[in-house]
Amino acid sequence: MINITIWNEFVHEQVHEKVREVYPKGIHHAIAEGIRSDAFNIRTATLDQPEHGLTEEVLNSTDVLIWWGHMAHDKVSDEVVARVVDRVLKGMGLIVLHSGHFSKPFKKLMGTSCDLLWREANEQEILWNVNPSHPIAKGIDTHFILDHEEMYGEFFDIPAPDEIVFISNFQGGEVFRSGCTFRRGQGKIFYFRPGHETHPTYFNSNVLQVISNAVHWASPDQPVPVTFGHRPNPVRPLEM
Amino acid sequence: MINITIWNEFVHEQVHEKVREVYPKGIHHAIAEGIRSDAFNIRTATLDQPEHGLTEEVLNSTDVLIWWGHMAHDKVSDEVVARVVDRVLKGMGLIVLHSGHFSKPFKKLMGTSCDLLWREANEQEILWNVNPSHPIAKGIDTHFILDHEEMYGEFFDIPAPDEIVFISNFQGGEVFRSGCTFRRGQGKIFYFRPGHETHPTYFNSNVLQVISNAVHWASPDQPVPVTFGHRPNPVRPLEM
Amino acid sequence: MINITIWNEFVHEQVHEKVREVYPKGIHHAIAEGIRSDAFNIRTATLDQPEHGLTEEVLNSTDVLIWWGHMAHDKVSDEVVARVVDRVLKGMGLIVLHSGHFSKPFKKLMGTSCDLLWREANEQEILWNVNPSHPIAKGIDTHFILDHEEMYGEFFDIPAPDEIVFISNFQGGEVFRSGCTFRRGQGKIFYFRPGHETHPTYFNSNVLQVISNAVHWASPDQPVPVTFGHRPNPVRPLEM
Amino acid sequence: MINITIWNEFVHEQVHEKVREVYPKGIHHAIAEGIRSDAFNIRTATLDQPEHGLTEEVLNSTDVLIWWGHMAHDKVSDEVVARVVDRVLKGMGLIVLHSGHFSKPFKKLMGTSCDLLWREANEQEILWNVNPSHPIAKGIDTHFILDHEEMYGEFFDIPAPDEIVFISNFQGGEVFRSGCTFRRGQGKIFYFRPGHETHPTYFNSNVLQVISNAVHWASPDQPVPVTFGHRPNPVRPLEM
Repeated sequence: MINITIWNEFVHEQVHEKVREVYPKGIHHAIAEGIRSDAFNIRTATLDQPEHGLTEEVLNSTDVLIWWGHMAHDKVSDEVVARVVDRVLKGMGLIVLHSGHFSKPFKKLMGTSCDLLWREANEQEILWNVNPSHPIAKGIDTHFILDHEEMYGEFFDIPAPDEIVFISNFQGGEVFRSGCTFRRGQGKIFYFRPGHETHPTYFNSNVLQVISNAVHWASPDQPVPVTFGHRPNPVRPLEM
Repeated sequence: MINITIWNEFVHEQVHEKVREVYPKGIHHAIAEGIRSDAFNIRTATLDQPEHGLTEEVLNSTDVLIWWGHMAHDKVSDEVVARVVDRVLKGMGLIVLHSGHFSKPFKKLMGTSCDLLWREANEQEILWNVNPSHPIAKGIDTHFILDHEEMYGEFFDIPAPDEIVFISNFQGGEVFRSGCTFRRGQGKIFYFRPGHETHPTYFNSNVLQVISNAVHWASPDQPVPVTFGHRPNPVRPLEM
Repeated sequence: MINITIWNEFVHEQVHEKVREVYPKGIHHAIAEGIRSDAFNIRTATLDQPEHGLTEEVLNSTDVLIWWGHMAHDKVSDEVVARVVDRVLKGMGLIVLHSGHFSKPFKKLMGTSCDLLWREANEQEILWNVNPSHPIAKGIDTHFILDHEEMYGEFFDIPAPDEIVFISNFQGGEVFRSGCTFRRGQGKIFYFRPGHETHPTYFNSNVLQVISNAVHWASPDQPVPVTFGHRPNPVRPLEM
Repeated sequence: MINITIWNEFVHEQVHEKVREVYPKGIHHAIAEGIRSDAFNIRTATLDQPEHGLTEEVLNSTDVLIWWGHMAHDKVSDEVVARVVDRVLKGMGLIVLHSGHFSKPFKKLMGTSCDLLWREANEQEILWNVNPSHPIAKGIDTHFILDHEEMYGEFFDIPAPDEIVFISNFQGGEVFRSGCTFRRGQGKIFYFRPGHETHPTYFNSNVLQVISNAVHWASPDQPVPVTFGHRPNPVRPLEM
């Protein structure tokens, strides 16, 4: 059983009629419904909850955290951000969606600006599977199409990903590294591009399959025996 | 259930008394015993069998092939080598052990000389876990020790591995990238250094744990939807 | 001074009127003219020459080899291919262009099928600079456009590149990892996608700039002190 | 001409007699003397200067910043750290030495704890050249020896480096990824392990050669045409 917490800032859905029409119960709710599985124990958390719903207790019992944010990145408290980052470094999986590229936890874990190009023109996005044997691509065909999405374009200012799983072609001519893995500390991170709030992307079966696969991939499967600090005793005696 | 074929050239054990004492039934047999599990369906194959025991039928029903060879690399027929390489590119996992660095299939899949430094001096090898959250390191502590092993030293002429899981320290002063992953085609490859024929390395519980982990990691878990060749019809109509 | 040899199979230009109109003196000649520089000493070689123009003497005095081939991959003798591969592993740079993805030297150095999708529809290709501080991208803007090119699409069956410098967007909806670096042995390899024989791609200033940059990047700048084989004497004495 | 700024916290040398004996004018001075070249314009800066000597003006005219710190990491102001990180992301090279693994700029750029094992036992370190054709290894033999150094051991909690150039073997049995490259934003970063303050490491010709090579490698050689943000006009017209 994998313990998942889906975090959504949940602001667009309350202030923008157009977004509420697409996600009446919030993006977090759509994802939770969409990836429902006997293997998953799913909770949600939102910005307006105490400690944004990400208390020590919640994070300590989370195997994989899914993150969607956009309008309110700077409303997330630095204390909670530090807690999330610390948990990732100690092994919690993290799946960062779409505009989460500019979230505080992702930027801190990447160490770069995470900036990019963007355009809202309801254009077509085609995601190509460039790592077909990767567990995150399980069940995904050679490519899949989202008829209407926001464009994100390169240069995407991230460290070179450990692995690239998907690359997007946008109708307007841009490309984007849309599915990227990173290990940081003992934690596994997956960035997945699609999911603009005005499009029903989180009802798309391919998108949901990828998120579900990523949860399995990012879930920590072991107590990791890392030790740091002073190690006065060598493995092999020093003859001095 | 993962279908495993353990291939061993099985020559040392028949011609060298010292090796036979360590592995009376052959290295393949020791590994088969050592990784036995309800999740594994294990066969073995050896050089002296027809087609070296690696017929089309055997390979087509193998999920992960484990390879040990040394004295007789050039006795392996090019036809069988081509068959193995082809199966890896189509998704079969491959675990190459120790002196298998110079085997024909590994060299063909790497594209480099796969050369290295070596010394037989029964010296101590300490393998450090430099990727502790990797599935191949599951259950392995910060490091483990082999009291007596052959030394392999850098520069190891391989392509930059996708991931490094273990690095060895040898008593004589050398280091070696001892656990390396590579994806080639749809197949996953793990090179694992330890296992000189005169040492009981394949009875060591850490070594067996790593091999067992690598089998799980390398096993193909999906039909992979790769298509190649002429694609006359664009996804997006060309207005010409 | 960098010694460059530009190899072209030079068949299309002699048998296809349409290609001869674009490259009357051959693709190799266009590239040689296009990258001319005081820093470069450029020779060309073609399939129909003795040993395809790639004698021991020529290769031993070549710092960077540029390779274009398509129709006649299988006409290149295995002996010359082995010689090229050996020289790359010992430090010669190699730049593989377009349909050279299926050339024998590239396939041997990659270890994979190097297969891909393709379509000849004179469509637009936009190459995005996804590694803007890389020396191969020097002087290249955020992107550049080729109005008419052959399409190459993913999945491109290569090992994960060490670095990706360019990703292409094709009008028909595909993407491609169009500029990829690989180290093999002591040699540096750059694969660069554009250059279908019916289009004047090798007269494009951006394409020529990239090839020229790649020559500088791939040129070996040092005698490389690699030693292999038996190393009986440890660095640190073994107290046994 | 490459503009180099060598930053040293310069505390040990003033408070520890033993360190002053080794580096009477400071570690920064030893490095500056040691890498002196007609190609380099070298300045130094220290913690006790206004803005730690790293004003906007200094950083804006620095191509490569070299960083040594240990006792006083937390004395470096967050404002200066932010300035350094910003400059790296915009293209300034950064070479982080030894205990600088725990410096604020390096940790911010890596996004991880950068923790490790350590022992002060004056033991032997052997650095192996595992990337012999890399420009940072230019002129370095297969390995070099430091007779007395502090031990740093794995697991070193950094993101997977883009490239590993050196791996260390310590007498006590540990290993360490001692020479690692990372691109962050448009900047190139090299972490180089040796350099404990009580040992004359920065007078060692191999160590100085590596630092000098790294300066050449990390120096930005181009105005980088990165653009971010809103891009309303597609490259290819959207027919809507």
